[in-house]
Amino acid sequence: MRIRGIALALLAVSIPAAASTVPLDEPIRPIEPAAVTNPALVELGKKLFFDPRLSKSGFISCNSCHNLSLGGSDNLKTSIGHNWQKGPINSPTVLNSSLNLAQFWDGRAADLQEQAGGPIANPGEMAFTHELAIHVLESIPQYVAEFRKVSGRDQIDIGQVTRAIAAFEETLVTPDSRFDHWLGGDSGALSAEELAGYGVFKEAGCVACHNGPGAGGTSFQRMGVKAPYVTSSPEQGRIEVTGDEFDRMRFKVPTLRNVELTYPYFHDGEAETLAEAVEVMGRLQLGREFTPAETKQVVAFLATLTGTQPSFVLPLLPPSSERTPPPQPFE
Amino acid sequence: MRIRGIALALLAVSIPAAASTVPLDEPIRPIEPAAVTNPALVELGKKLFFDPRLSKSGFISCNSCHNLSLGGSDNLKTSIGHNWQKGPINSPTVLNSSLNLAQFWDGRAADLQEQAGGPIANPGEMAFTHELAIHVLESIPQYVAEFRKVSGRDQIDIGQVTRAIAAFEETLVTPDSRFDHWLGGDSGALSAEELAGYGVFKEAGCVACHNGPGAGGTSFQRMGVKAPYVTSSPEQGRIEVTGDEFDRMRFKVPTLRNVELTYPYFHDGEAETLAEAVEVMGRLQLGREFTPAETKQVVAFLATLTGTQPSFVLPLLPPSSERTPPPQPFE
Repeated sequence: MRIRGIALALLAVSIPAAASTVPLDEPIRPIEPAAVTNPALVELGKKLFFDPRLSKSGFISCNSCHNLSLGGSDNLKTSIGHNWQKGPINSPTVLNSSLNLAQFWDGRAADLQEQAGGPIANPGEMAFTHELAIHVLESIPQYVAEFRKVSGRDQIDIGQVTRAIAAFEETLVTPDSRFDHWLGGDSGALSAEELAGYGVFKEAGCVACHNGPGAGGTSFQRMGVKAPYVTSSPEQGRIEVTGDEFDRMRFKVPTLRNVELTYPYFHDGEAETLAEAVEVMGRLQLGREFTPAETKQVVAFLATLTGTQPSFVLPLLPPSSERTPPPQPFE
Repeated sequence: MRIRGIALALLAVSIPAAASTVPLDEPIRPIEPAAVTNPALVELGKKLFFDPRLSKSGFISCNSCHNLSLGGSDNLKTSIGHNWQKGPINSPTVLNSSLNLAQFWDGRAADLQEQAGGPIANPGEMAFTHELAIHVLESIPQYVAEFRKVSGRDQIDIGQVTRAIAAFEETLVTPDSRFDHWLGGDSGALSAEELAGYGVFKEAGCVACHNGPGAGGTSFQRMGVKAPYVTSSPEQGRIEVTGDEFDRMRFKVPTLRNVELTYPYFHDGEAETLAEAVEVMGRLQLGREFTPAETKQVVAFLATLTGTQPSFVLPLLPPSSERTPPPQPFE
C-alpha cells in the first residue's frame, strides 16, 4: 500500500494531468469529506451551535467565537465573553477540529463532545450552567421533540446536547483545498512560488509539528524552543492540565488548514499577519531566520491550505415558550 | 379593480376550497414575496449584514441584534451593545421592515437605507464610525471587487454600504403565513379558535393600528391611550424626533408578522408573553378587558401570522488583508 502510494505519486509527477485517488506520500495528508451517519443529530447540533440561549445572556452562541462566516474563529486576539469579559486566549478555529488529538490549546478536553460543555459553563464565556441550559432546552417544545427523535428519550441531558454539537462540528471539515488537489496528483494545482514555499516549509522542519490531515493538531509542543517566547499573556499551556513542569508553555500545535482566514495567530493572538507568524515560528521554534523571499513563499503555500468552507442554510431556531426562563444579560 | 376584488372575495367565501389570486378584503393585507432586481447587491448586503467588522469590536454585526435565526430580533428585553452596554430599547425585527412607514421605534430614519447607517456609528451599539467602517471595507480586496461590480466605482462610500444592506433587508419578507393562505381564499387554513381570535382582534379595534401587509408599521400611536403606560424605561418616543409634545410616548406601531418569534414585546420589552401583550394592549389602548378565552383566541390568531422565514446559505465573509486595521474590542 505504501509502495503503491509512492508509485502512483511518481506517476502523477510524470503525467501531470492524471489525478490519482492515492495521494502523494507527503507529511500533510488530504482532508476527507465528512461522512454524515446521523443527519438528524447533525441538524440538531447545528441549531444548538447557533443558539444563544445556551448562554446566560441569550446573546452568545458557539458561533459567536467560532464564527462559520469567518473561518470558524472570531478573528479577535482573544475572545469576548459574558459581560464583555476579555478572554485569556485566542479562539481556535472549529474547522477540522475533529482532526485534533485533543481540544482546547492545552488539550484539557479529550474530544469535541467534552469540549462543547466547557464554554457553556465557563463564567468568562457563556456564563451559564449545564443545568440551566437543559432547563431552557426542555422548555422549548421543538427541541424536546428533536432530542426525542435522535435519542429516543423524553428527557434531555447535557451529554445529548454536547453529542449533538460535536456531531455537527465533525461535519466542519474543509476538503478540496488547492494543496489537496496537488496531493491528489494535480501537479498544476500549485504555482511555482507555492511549491517553493512548501519546499521551505518541509526543509526548515515546520512539518515536524504541522503534519497530518490538519497540518497540525497532532501533538503538543513548547512555544519557544530555540529562544523563549516573550508575551504579556499569562497562559502557561498544558502544565495547567498535567501539573508537569515539562508541559510549561507547551500548547497543542494549531491546524494550518484555512490559516489565511484564522488570523490573528498563536495562543495569545499576538501575530497579526501570516508573515509575522512564519517569521516568529522560524526563529523561535527552528532557530532559522527566513529570508523575506522564503517567508513570502511559505505564506503563499499556506494560503493553498484553504479548503471548501462548510456551506449550509442558516438554521432557524425554535421559539421559546412561556415556560422558558428569560435570558439574564445584565445580571 | 376594487369591485372585482370584493366579488372574488365573496366567491372565495362561498367556495371555500378555491384559492383566489385576489385576497379577501381585510384590513390586514397579504405579504408579497420579495422581487429581487439586483441579486449581486443583495448578496453583498447579506455579507455586510453578517460582518462584525462593521463594528469597533469586530464582534457585533447587524445580525447580532436582528438575528435571522430568531425571527430577526435578539429576543432580549433591550439589546447588548459595544462593551456590553445595555441598550435603551427593544430591538425591532428586521423581518418585513421594508413595509414600515419609517424605521426605528421613533421613526427617525425614513427608510431602511437611512436606518442601516445608525447602529454602525451609535456609540452604544456598534460604536464605530462610517469613516472607519469604510476604511476596513476598502482594505478587503474581495469587498472592493464586489462593490465595484455593483456600483461601477473604485471607491466605497457609506451610501453604497447602506444601500446594499437595505437591498438585502428588502428580501427579508415572510409570505405564506397561514393567515395569508386564508386571505387568499383557503378558508380551511385557520382553525375555529384562530378565526374567532381574528374576529375579536377586529371587533375590539386592534386593526385600527395593526393593519396593512405588516399588520402594523403603518402609523405612530401613543403608548397608553385609555390609561397611561407605566414603565421604568425613559424612552419618550417620537417627540425626540419632532420636538412636538403631541408626540410624547408615540411610537411606531410594530408589525405583528411573526410576532410569536419576536418576544419580548413593546418598545421596552416589558411584556414577556403574547398573552400579556394582548392583555395590556386591550386595557391601555382600547379600554377593554379581554376575557381569558378572548386573549387565548387572539394569541392563537397572532400565531397564524408567522410566515416562511428567509432561508439562505450562511454567507462566507472575505478575509481581512494585512492593511485591515484590527478590531478594538477592549479599547
